[in-house]
Amino acid sequence: FTLASLRGNYQPELSRRLYRLIKTENHVITSYESAGRERQSIANQLSEWGEQTGDDAVNELSDKLGVLLSELGAQEEAFAQSLEEYRSVLKQIRNTESSVQPSREHKAKITDEIAKLRYKDPSSTKITLLEQELVRAEAENLVAEAQLTNVTRSKLKEAFAAQFVAVIERAEKQTVLARHGLRMLNLLDDTPVVPGEQLLPFEHEREARQILLDAEEELKDWSLNIEEEVTTNAH
Amino acid sequence: FTLASLRGNYQPELSRRLYRLIKTENHVITSYESAGRERQSIANQLSEWGEQTGDDAVNELSDKLGVLLSELGAQEEAFAQSLEEYRSVLKQIRNTESSVQPSREHKAKITDEIAKLRYKDPSSTKITLLEQELVRAEAENLVAEAQLTNVTRSKLKEAFAAQFVAVIERAEKQTVLARHGLRMLNLLDDTPVVPGEQLLPFEHEREARQILLDAEEELKDWSLNIEEEVTTNAH
Repeated sequence: FTLASLRGNYQPELSRRLYRLIKTENHVITSYESAGRERQSIANQLSEWGEQTGDDAVNELSDKLGVLLSELGAQEEAFAQSLEEYRSVLKQIRNTESSVQPSREHKAKITDEIAKLRYKDPSSTKITLLEQELVRAEAENLVAEAQLTNVTRSKLKEAFAAQFVAVIERAEKQTVLARHGLRMLNLLDDTPVVPGEQLLPFEHEREARQILLDAEEELKDWSLNIEEEVTTNAH
Repeated sequence: FTLASLRGNYQPELSRRLYRLIKTENHVITSYESAGRERQSIANQLSEWGEQTGDDAVNELSDKLGVLLSELGAQEEAFAQSLEEYRSVLKQIRNTESSVQPSREHKAKITDEIAKLRYKDPSSTKITLLEQELVRAEAENLVAEAQLTNVTRSKLKEAFAAQFVAVIERAEKQTVLARHGLRMLNLLDDTPVVPGEQLLPFEHEREARQILLDAEEELKDWSLNIEEEVTTNAH
């Protein structure tokens, strides 16, 4: 039982579930932001660690790995940012739900009043007036419910299309980085040295730099390429 | 300034940096575990929300989207688990660093004692004994340093190969889920309804189920396929 769930209780009945879902989504986003930030911090730590090993090969490699890790972290943060956009689309459904609630309540209230009055004072002239008001309330509510259906359907598609595209973008960009990371690892020769053997300077500095350039280039050229584009008839 | 960083100060000098990096990596893992768990909770919330909309199409679709989201969350948790394995390989480097530290200190201590004694009592016979001890300490340290170099190089490759492969696995599996998610969204017709229009029952139940089966099948058939396999000469 948290403050957030307490606050959830003050939401109109109709929008309560989505309100909570949007709250939970905020926790997810915070987790990804934090994972991305910490991954970038680890990139620095790795590079500093490599420097103090006194092994030139490990030093150079951990420095270059750091660059790739840092970019992996940046992609994680960009993913969190995209989820924020998806979340804001969900809010549009929630807000429409909130705004439709009074219309439902208004209709229910008049229906209730008519029933009470018919029981207490069946000949009251107020009944006719209330019935007219009910007709108007029903018409207003029909419009509100249609709006809710339309917003819900189109924004549900829009929101989850945004989430899925964000998943694909993160996945493809991080795959580029990871594949070049694997190439980078192969520049480190781990043939065992014997005690007292002089450690040789790293010989693949140029190749390591080229791998970083390749990764950068591929990320720059990346574009979304999906067969399953989501279509809408909403407008 | 946290308790973790205080504890970091009690680590041997040599393993302090990696000790902290491994701590930070633990935070990253916790973030992914939490993101995965919350994503699965959102899957349930979405399905329950869809049920209460009273719109059959939204109900069916949010239920099926929930299945895909839940699997996206499970993949995030599996990724956290793989990072745990990568982290345990880093610990092997850290432990070797810790075990090499006394050997360096032992050598430095004897060198120091010899220097002091040469200054205070240059004719002491203890000097010869200490010099013999120093030769032994140096030999022992040469072995330790070679072990450290070998473990560091091979475990660095092994650890980051594991991380990069985990990144690729999560990426490819989540891409499968996201692409089928986009297909799923296109089953929802968002052509605006007019006020009072009867909402039709969802007509694509069978296609929706087929999309889930396709996704399940593709995940089951998934296997790692990388050109950049990391090779080792460590053994």
